[in-house]
Amino acid sequence: MPTSSAFPLRACVYLALAAALPAQVVDTSRSPYARLHGVPVQAVRMGEGFWTPRLRVNVEKSIPALLDLLEEHGAVDNFRRLGARKAVSRRGPLYTDSDVYKWMEAAAFVLQSGASPGLEARLDALADEIAAAQEPTGYLNTYYVEERRGLRFTEMQRSHELYCLGHLIQAAIAYERARGKRKLLDAGIRFANYLVASFGPQERPALTGHPELEMAMVELYRATGDRRYLNFAGYLLSGVERERLKLRDSDIRYLFSGVPFTSRTRFEGHAVRAMYASCGAADDYMETGDAAYRETLEALWRDMTGRKMYITGGVGSRAAGEAFGEDYELPNRQAYTESCAAIGNLMWNWRLLLARGETRFADVMERALYNGINSGMSLSGTLYCYRNPLESAGEKIRNPWYDTTCCPPNLQRTFASLPGYLYATSPAGVYVNLYHASELVWHLESGVPLKLRQATRYPWDGAIEIAVDPAAPAEFTLFLRIPEWSERSAVAVNGQPVAGWRAGQYCEIRRRWAAGDRVKLALDTRPRLTASNPLVHENAGRVAVERGPLVYCLESHDNPAVPDLAGVALSLAGAFREEDRPDLLGGVRVLRRAGFAARRPLAAEPLYRPFTPQPEPATPVELTFIPYYAWANRAPAGMQVWVRWH
Amino acid sequence: MPTSSAFPLRACVYLALAAALPAQVVDTSRSPYARLHGVPVQAVRMGEGFWTPRLRVNVEKSIPALLDLLEEHGAVDNFRRLGARKAVSRRGPLYTDSDVYKWMEAAAFVLQSGASPGLEARLDALADEIAAAQEPTGYLNTYYVEERRGLRFTEMQRSHELYCLGHLIQAAIAYERARGKRKLLDAGIRFANYLVASFGPQERPALTGHPELEMAMVELYRATGDRRYLNFAGYLLSGVERERLKLRDSDIRYLFSGVPFTSRTRFEGHAVRAMYASCGAADDYMETGDAAYRETLEALWRDMTGRKMYITGGVGSRAAGEAFGEDYELPNRQAYTESCAAIGNLMWNWRLLLARGETRFADVMERALYNGINSGMSLSGTLYCYRNPLESAGEKIRNPWYDTTCCPPNLQRTFASLPGYLYATSPAGVYVNLYHASELVWHLESGVPLKLRQATRYPWDGAIEIAVDPAAPAEFTLFLRIPEWSERSAVAVNGQPVAGWRAGQYCEIRRRWAAGDRVKLALDTRPRLTASNPLVHENAGRVAVERGPLVYCLESHDNPAVPDLAGVALSLAGAFREEDRPDLLGGVRVLRRAGFAARRPLAAEPLYRPFTPQPEPATPVELTFIPYYAWANRAPAGMQVWVRWH
Repeated sequence: MPTSSAFPLRACVYLALAAALPAQVVDTSRSPYARLHGVPVQAVRMGEGFWTPRLRVNVEKSIPALLDLLEEHGAVDNFRRLGARKAVSRRGPLYTDSDVYKWMEAAAFVLQSGASPGLEARLDALADEIAAAQEPTGYLNTYYVEERRGLRFTEMQRSHELYCLGHLIQAAIAYERARGKRKLLDAGIRFANYLVASFGPQERPALTGHPELEMAMVELYRATGDRRYLNFAGYLLSGVERERLKLRDSDIRYLFSGVPFTSRTRFEGHAVRAMYASCGAADDYMETGDAAYRETLEALWRDMTGRKMYITGGVGSRAAGEAFGEDYELPNRQAYTESCAAIGNLMWNWRLLLARGETRFADVMERALYNGINSGMSLSGTLYCYRNPLESAGEKIRNPWYDTTCCPPNLQRTFASLPGYLYATSPAGVYVNLYHASELVWHLESGVPLKLRQATRYPWDGAIEIAVDPAAPAEFTLFLRIPEWSERSAVAVNGQPVAGWRAGQYCEIRRRWAAGDRVKLALDTRPRLTASNPLVHENAGRVAVERGPLVYCLESHDNPAVPDLAGVALSLAGAFREEDRPDLLGGVRVLRRAGFAARRPLAAEPLYRPFTPQPEPATPVELTFIPYYAWANRAPAGMQVWVRWH
Repeated sequence: MPTSSAFPLRACVYLALAAALPAQVVDTSRSPYARLHGVPVQAVRMGEGFWTPRLRVNVEKSIPALLDLLEEHGAVDNFRRLGARKAVSRRGPLYTDSDVYKWMEAAAFVLQSGASPGLEARLDALADEIAAAQEPTGYLNTYYVEERRGLRFTEMQRSHELYCLGHLIQAAIAYERARGKRKLLDAGIRFANYLVASFGPQERPALTGHPELEMAMVELYRATGDRRYLNFAGYLLSGVERERLKLRDSDIRYLFSGVPFTSRTRFEGHAVRAMYASCGAADDYMETGDAAYRETLEALWRDMTGRKMYITGGVGSRAAGEAFGEDYELPNRQAYTESCAAIGNLMWNWRLLLARGETRFADVMERALYNGINSGMSLSGTLYCYRNPLESAGEKIRNPWYDTTCCPPNLQRTFASLPGYLYATSPAGVYVNLYHASELVWHLESGVPLKLRQATRYPWDGAIEIAVDPAAPAEFTLFLRIPEWSERSAVAVNGQPVAGWRAGQYCEIRRRWAAGDRVKLALDTRPRLTASNPLVHENAGRVAVERGPLVYCLESHDNPAVPDLAGVALSLAGAFREEDRPDLLGGVRVLRRAGFAARRPLAAEPLYRPFTPQPEPATPVELTFIPYYAWANRAPAGMQVWVRWH
């Protein structure tokens, strides 16, 4: 056959590429308790599709604009002023260093995907500024200097010193993996070494007042092989310093730190802290295999997905303390659902997916990614949601800058690293976890070079074609994630239907694959209505509209005939009418369906009235739903995800 | 007729009593813009009825026990230590003085109703301790002394100095009105004079960081005739010191102070602060007649009753900041609804009733009193709710003591002053605002002595008999409040039906009344189902059960066949079955009705699932409702006010 003769040459090219390619976003390639191993960002080329405009605007608009804003607000000058390099005052809250690091990590992921004019030079310059601010001991923080020097490591509940170090390490690793440049990584290692030598059960007590360093330390271990970092992560997660640090119960709850991670049974306190701590614990588990961690992670996952996660994948119900609420406390309008918390949810479920190899984790990732994360950045790429509520009376929600500007660079690094989340491998074969037009140039764990090419308009369309091209024929399993929501799906290889799998699992196709094999997958993206557990009181009598991975919503702009979204009900009669609207919101598919609108604004009605089982008289209307992620990209307007049905 | 010959003697007795009787709880007798005038606590003798056990336990258990606890926690010693009278450290939060004062006010109201063994001596002793702690300037506060002396009046946002003075003045006035003893009042006046002389637009700036002094100052004006106090209240409400005190927007919201009261359009921030500020504004209005105040009060009343009040009369949805939520943000399980806020609501609506003479204010008073206030104290009288949620998964809610122990003495003073809220007068006649077995010995504003006697088992029974006995025949109007919920009512005078009135108004019976006249009123206390505006998302698809002024609830104890209250639905078929249970919870009428219970605990169901319009299979059960106020008087258990219907 003509194709086979080409294999030796192609194999060489693939192998050469693979050898040059740096490691994964979370490099579990040598983690003994990871079932899956990611692929490097560099191994995936994204084709035109749903995420392309987002990724493009991230590189072209978001990332440059944010660096300008970080400069404008003094976050970079905070480094320059040290060593008397620039005579300015320190500005911003005590954790601004982390914003710069997170921006750098985003930029580094962009470079992992390829060149970007000027970006590498800016990163290099920043790395110089940062390294120059480091003290000979390795200490590096722009807040605990000068008159606050004496406070170093004395107020760990609030200091964010370890949090900033965690982000420094993550940025440094991403940059080293992009370009092999070690300046920032060496700075991170110096500070990490200082910490590892000075803190611990026999030394001074340490606490992650905002968990983050745990996962960074495990990744630093993966990047360097130095086991002290892994041990230090384990020490942080062990939570043994409660007594020495005189932590209060409220600290323990809020910080999600300070007691053994394995003593946790439910999520509480600050949502981002809890998510990051759980990321660290998952990372630790993949290296140590400690069953207590696995069980705690499982209990927490059930707690979140069973009682505390919004349908958008957002978490953290309460503005007060940016915190998880009680079980089933999922208010829509008051939802806090910080962008960073949804990102933390993605990061955590990615780690759980690598650890356990079950699609349920990828389902949560996809839910958060397409909805609660994707809503966090405007389509223009320069306005951000800090909160991502599921209902709005039309308050302005997006801003270009927040004094606590954690979310914007977090969104940027997430989108920039997105190619790294699509695929994975195991000794058994290769996994397709997220669907998007793309090309994977990587290899099987047996060493056989492999090229996978996805062609799809997903999520607008459920049809996915995958070209499987191993460099040489090889027996392995192609694992296709069948999302739990895809009620009716179909899979075929080279035109032959594949059976024996179901939604919410991988469709595992084990065969001897050879170049030219073609897989067709049809996922069920018909619009569907979703109910929530009646224990979520706010959603009683309501449904959410979903289509594929997308949660939909009503926004007033698209429903001019409805005087008051709050008075709307969806008709159960009839069906959805779908319409592609390339002109709308960057190109979306809208969903229309019959419904009813209250004749008078509900706000004109009394708060309490005698009950009558008959509903209020209402006017028939056609309701138009848009994807939730696209809301708040026009003038501020009313919005609603959970809609009453009638 | 034999009765008329007795009149002259009885008239003399009445007049002698009236002359000796001190003033009302809120003495509007000379307030030019008050339409109604209360009657003194002393003028009302409570008969046996709904409130009798509560008032008795308040005197016999609650008040003595709380003084012991105030002693135990050092709140009284905080006074004794000043002037080196007792060598102890100051204890408790900065506002403990107010707890002692509020306790004293409660005790003073008890004395207004008659003698109570030992209570007067304890009050006298406390007054001595307090007066001895006063400085020669008049300053009196146990926190801002010694090393904190320099902070006096420098941190008014948090200091509670003026708040404590307000409670001192209220206690002092109540005691002076009970026994004519002026020691405490003189202390209050000295501090008030110091304040009035030192603060104001031309002097130092003042702010009520916790409003309270406003109403106390108006009452001090009423008690003394000294207009400086009224002017000072007006100054506090004028909110002109924003600039001088550098108040932030968040202060303005949270404190409900610091900007002109008349610039407010809606409730926000700390609920008790907002209620107390509104009380002060209503008091100010009754003296000054300022239309801007009347309009602001009206707008705020509509804001609260139309968008922000629980069906229990509780207000303040959020634990964070003990604050009002947004419009229609009325979560049930997370409801904060501090007892003090419901009391503030009662106090405010009492003032509005006096100012405007409309039953809608008395309706709100009654709602708060029977439900959201009444739930605040256990039937035993020694355990208190700080929060009064409308749903519970069974957390412990009552405690004998809180470090911030504002609610217990606030409940005590409310119950002790209750007789003063039943009746009122105007030039037109006499008003019956609350129904309870009682005897009013007072006089018409024309001076004619009048005795009114109510015989009723209200609220258990809607039948009320009122004996009207003027000392001499006189033409006047008897105003009977017909609650808005009483759909079918009947009124008769001496057996003759009275027509021409409707629910939610006074039934005004103008005639020449003579001793021996008898009025019969039948209110509609059939159980009823109440719905809330769909904008309260949590209550969609749910109803509340009410009967007369009582809100009912399900408590797990009474529904042993229901595995999980959260999975319950009330059947619309059938009707309520009522049963008097003298053995239960101090004697209550329970309501039973058919319903359904979920076959499996809802917590076993997923958080999200495909929608089906058919409800889950359920088991028929009989549901038993108890009055909300009586919940949490057995072991902690699940509770629910708003119940799904089916």
